[in-house]
Amino acid sequence: VTRHAVILAGGSGTRLWPASRRSLPKQFLPFGEKGTPLIAAAIARARIVAGDRVTIVTADDQLEATRAVAPGTDILGEPAARNTAAAIGLAAARIAAADPDAAIVVLPADHHIGNEAGLAELLDRALAEVEGPSTRRDGIITIGIAPTGPETGYGYIEVDTVLPGSITAVRRFVEKPDRITAERYIAGGRHLWNAGIFIARASRILADLDAQLPATATAVRAIAAGTSRAEDVYPTLRSISFDHAVMEHARDVFAIPASVGWNDVGSWAALSKLRPGDLHGNALDGTALVMGSNNIVFNDDPNTLVAAIGVDDVVIVKSGDVILVVPTAEAQRVRELVDALGKDAKLAKYR
Amino acid sequence: VTRHAVILAGGSGTRLWPASRRSLPKQFLPFGEKGTPLIAAAIARARIVAGDRVTIVTADDQLEATRAVAPGTDILGEPAARNTAAAIGLAAARIAAADPDAAIVVLPADHHIGNEAGLAELLDRALAEVEGPSTRRDGIITIGIAPTGPETGYGYIEVDTVLPGSITAVRRFVEKPDRITAERYIAGGRHLWNAGIFIARASRILADLDAQLPATATAVRAIAAGTSRAEDVYPTLRSISFDHAVMEHARDVFAIPASVGWNDVGSWAALSKLRPGDLHGNALDGTALVMGSNNIVFNDDPNTLVAAIGVDDVVIVKSGDVILVVPTAEAQRVRELVDALGKDAKLAKYR
Repeated sequence: VTRHAVILAGGSGTRLWPASRRSLPKQFLPFGEKGTPLIAAAIARARIVAGDRVTIVTADDQLEATRAVAPGTDILGEPAARNTAAAIGLAAARIAAADPDAAIVVLPADHHIGNEAGLAELLDRALAEVEGPSTRRDGIITIGIAPTGPETGYGYIEVDTVLPGSITAVRRFVEKPDRITAERYIAGGRHLWNAGIFIARASRILADLDAQLPATATAVRAIAAGTSRAEDVYPTLRSISFDHAVMEHARDVFAIPASVGWNDVGSWAALSKLRPGDLHGNALDGTALVMGSNNIVFNDDPNTLVAAIGVDDVVIVKSGDVILVVPTAEAQRVRELVDALGKDAKLAKYR
Repeated sequence: VTRHAVILAGGSGTRLWPASRRSLPKQFLPFGEKGTPLIAAAIARARIVAGDRVTIVTADDQLEATRAVAPGTDILGEPAARNTAAAIGLAAARIAAADPDAAIVVLPADHHIGNEAGLAELLDRALAEVEGPSTRRDGIITIGIAPTGPETGYGYIEVDTVLPGSITAVRRFVEKPDRITAERYIAGGRHLWNAGIFIARASRILADLDAQLPATATAVRAIAAGTSRAEDVYPTLRSISFDHAVMEHARDVFAIPASVGWNDVGSWAALSKLRPGDLHGNALDGTALVMGSNNIVFNDDPNTLVAAIGVDDVVIVKSGDVILVVPTAEAQRVRELVDALGKDAKLAKYR
């Protein structure tokens, strides 16, 4: 059994606008260690468990930028964004065509992991389960993040029991909850965050797609075999997440709880948790003078000063030709702003 | 009797930072009608009552910039800022040396007047008082602004009675009041705002300086006569306002109440009152998309977007190499920010 890693790099990261743009998705932002792009950290993560067998799925118009940061990887381009079911299927078909017995780790390209060694150990154990003589060799294993609060922005995984580091059966995947439900999950101690990290045989993934999403399964096999062109069939595929299409219906699904400093860098508020604050809780990146508390500044121009007084709990971003101001508590709403820009002919270029 | 106007252009306008800088004081900001500098509006205002007899007092390092916007005026440079008593004295001495019988209107360079014709009419009446056979020909007349609210940022003038447009005796000048005192002033109906607009004979001004500030009176006369160099004596003068040094002690002081759309453009909050807001009360100047209410944006770069969501009652300024965020209610505190910049070797250049 050979180990492969699949990195999903098809996201847009709208909520990190204006640092992320249509032409510069989140995985290229310099929020990894020492200012490296997040995708570089994801590739390093993948190489620990899969060596040089790393496959990246990304948008066709990101192929060039991806090649520049990912030498020695197999990069697959999607002519259209069709969510993770199609992307994982495409990678699994590609890998299985050459290596029918392969085991796969699926990793997002744009998350931050504080404890890479800790995650690598858990991935190694998950791979051992699906490779070995284990009764779980035909299962799908997910790394579930031990929650640190009643977040409403993540999907949750309900499991039998949560013992740190021990594998456990998944009861069900649940959607992003409301606040009260999230608090119940935390109090109950049987829910983990779904971080989109899956481990399984390529053959198992394709078998589940055959059962749940047969048109997609057929298409990705044909693309991998070279009998169909991605440009022709990919845009016709259903746009649905792997969670919805497969995981919610799958049998033999297991989870390994993880406390590895996971951060999805899903908004400016999330990103601030990666930065040390000053005495007043201000996390300042770039030239800034802030008289207030718990503010977040990202300023990409060393010659421009960001100054604020009398403001608390606010995000101020200067990135390229855009200045953004948003309260930290409303950082998720940046998506609304970007949508509004798209509806204005004069401002659409700033997306 | 000939009429002269004196424009005081020695202010710094720290509270309009970062649009105003040490090298670009407030009177040069394009906040007059159709984006003209405030000082250009002040010169036009002066010419209505004084024709080509306009004297401007400004800092030596602003002489060149002032000459560029004030052709045909007499411009006096101060080697050091010594507040308005010295500046008014210098102009009065200069004017009286050539024209001992002159009547003078003193105007600030950096205020905005919505109704210029209305102010011109009041200035004309005040000049007629000090020129004519009136019993007030030796008085000092001030244009007092009819208050529109209990502002704590202005000095007040207490008068006998306030009848719109009628001249009345001044009882006393009072300092910036606290909130409760300001509310009492408004309720009482006998207080006007001190806008720093004075009308008097040059000889009367010099006589009062002789009595109250003799060293200054001697020095400005010597500078005007060419027997002393401003560089030598001006820096030794006491730094005190004309209000403190003269008006608070003077006899025969009168006020004419004025409702002429006066705005001292003393902060970003004050400036916002000159701009029409959108449906949500946002006053946006420059390229901006704001989802919130009662915000103020000034953006000097048409190619840069200022975007905000979830914020209310906030000022966002992009001016040159500085971005400023401050709640409207705390706009006066911009001065603190500028002071803090001055204490930081790396950031002092942004003042």
